Amino acid sequence: MSAAGKSLSHRPIVTLTTDFGLNDHFVGTIKGVILDIVPGVEIVDICHSVQAFDVLDGALTIAQAYSYFPNGTVHLVVVDPGVGTARRPIIVTSERHHFVAPDNGVLSLVYGREERLHVRHVTAEHYYLQPVSNTFHGRDIFAPIGAYLAKGVDAEKFGEEISDFVRFNAPKPKPVDGNTIRAVILKVDRFGSGTFSATAAAI
Amino acid sequence: MSAAGKSLSHRPIVTLTTDFGLNDHFVGTIKGVILDIVPGVEIVDICHSVQAFDVLDGALTIAQAYSYFPNGTVHLVVVDPGVGTARRPIIVTSERHHFVAPDNGVLSLVYGREERLHVRHVTAEHYYLQPVSNTFHGRDIFAPIGAYLAKGVDAEKFGEEISDFVRFNAPKPKPVDGNTIRAVILKVDRFGSGTFSATAAAI
Amino acid sequence: MSAAGKSLSHRPIVTLTTDFGLNDHFVGTIKGVILDIVPGVEIVDICHSVQAFDVLDGALTIAQAYSYFPNGTVHLVVVDPGVGTARRPIIVTSERHHFVAPDNGVLSLVYGREERLHVRHVTAEHYYLQPVSNTFHGRDIFAPIGAYLAKGVDAEKFGEEISDFVRFNAPKPKPVDGNTIRAVILKVDRFGSGTFSATAAAI
Repeated sequence: MSAAGKSLSHRPIVTLTTDFGLNDHFVGTIKGVILDIVPGVEIVDICHSVQAFDVLDGALTIAQAYSYFPNGTVHLVVVDPGVGTARRPIIVTSERHHFVAPDNGVLSLVYGREERLHVRHVTAEHYYLQPVSNTFHGRDIFAPIGAYLAKGVDAEKFGEEISDFVRFNAPKPKPVDGNTIRAVILKVDRFGSGTFSATAAAI
Repeated sequence: MSAAGKSLSHRPIVTLTTDFGLNDHFVGTIKGVILDIVPGVEIVDICHSVQAFDVLDGALTIAQAYSYFPNGTVHLVVVDPGVGTARRPIIVTSERHHFVAPDNGVLSLVYGREERLHVRHVTAEHYYLQPVSNTFHGRDIFAPIGAYLAKGVDAEKFGEEISDFVRFNAPKPKPVDGNTIRAVILKVDRFGSGTFSATAAAI
Repeated sequence: MSAAGKSLSHRPIVTLTTDFGLNDHFVGTIKGVILDIVPGVEIVDICHSVQAFDVLDGALTIAQAYSYFPNGTVHLVVVDPGVGTARRPIIVTSERHHFVAPDNGVLSLVYGREERLHVRHVTAEHYYLQPVSNTFHGRDIFAPIGAYLAKGVDAEKFGEEISDFVRFNAPKPKPVDGNTIRAVILKVDRFGSGTFSATAAAI
């Protein structure tokens, strides 16, 4: 198994990156589910204001934050325009972290940064909260998966490794001539700084 | 005494559901008060964006989230258009949880779901933060009550049981004919899903 | 050394007051840095919606909340229009708390409330996250300082005491005649209550 599963020496940490916003009960409900499965867990909000259903925005957000967290952290990334369809829930395990997300490319920039990765299609539905709703897989599917990982359940227990996971490439900067490159602004933050495709590629 | 008070096997949990918003110091201040009374407590935000003074919105928010939390959780619900008046602070104890709120109906949907409940009018003012302000009972009254409950103080210590607590009924769906029912949309969430009166009744 | 550094009897607490907003990864990233340095720390958001670069708004926010926190709490206040320039990072130690901030006056109202204070210019750059960026000192400078303080490193280890720290005075209320005073509204909260210069002076 990977390093990520073995390095829990302190309170386990689960981070949340979602497009749920802060105006509803969603985020609180998910925290209840996680705390009920793994008491004493530390839950950290990375961001809940990812643009609704915007997989690229979610990908940028988690890519800029995840590496600062301790070994063994479980990152839940729920930006899920395909909720209720057959898109796969996956667990991605890197040298230091686990990631739980729908298989829609939201972890593409993580794939670009991490050399050794295991991607698993989660099929062990007995970990889910039953009955599973059609509209709130964050609560019923992703939160329990993340919680059981944080509790120490091996990633192997959740499903088989896959290699055909969804991955997109952020647009790369193109040299126009010796003095100019052309890049795409992917996001502008609160302070007016742009995240360029060049930056994202280098993240 | 009820089950809720005895089931604290891990860090106690206090959840917060308020209409304080996130643009001021209010929520942070309340957390300071709670942490000062019960070190090591886990404080979880359910939602702070309940519409200002909207008791129905608060009632829907806590009703959709509370049952996912572990046994022994203390839920603080502060949507309080009557702050500074004589409306009563109450503690509601169900089989698994405590709720602390003003007695204005904000727990009505909890009353509708839980069969065995004890509702107490809090009169033990020595638990309050002194001096009690006229405008910030969340800090001076509700936060200390919740914190001392989370610390293990018996609910009985705070005041006598009452039966005339305020309770409203969410509008119920009405059958119009065999194929049609008429229901009220109580709230529309970020993703455009409506919470209907039928759903709320069934929550 | 001061009392603040010795009173950690439970999980250390670090609070965050910033103008980072909640729409980006900034706050989550800072929490990752802190948790990586001091596992088990309790991180509490006071407010991240301070008006961008508004030092007075930041000063009011921290002043209204900090005193409610337990002894030994470390308050990080990052409202930093001078990020990337030579303005000094400082540690302010009062009887009960530590404060970490840029030296731009954002702690002025704390200075006004606390009688015994030690202000230090942080020069021990080996505590910083390397390499230090030009735009995100919250992550690279202030978060590590706060984390190491919370971990128990003595404030003296970070740099020498100074007395020429930046301090502004909130406009004071002026008596116009026997029945009237003239005061400035410094901030209006979500519920329409104004924080007057008189209040701020008395905070």
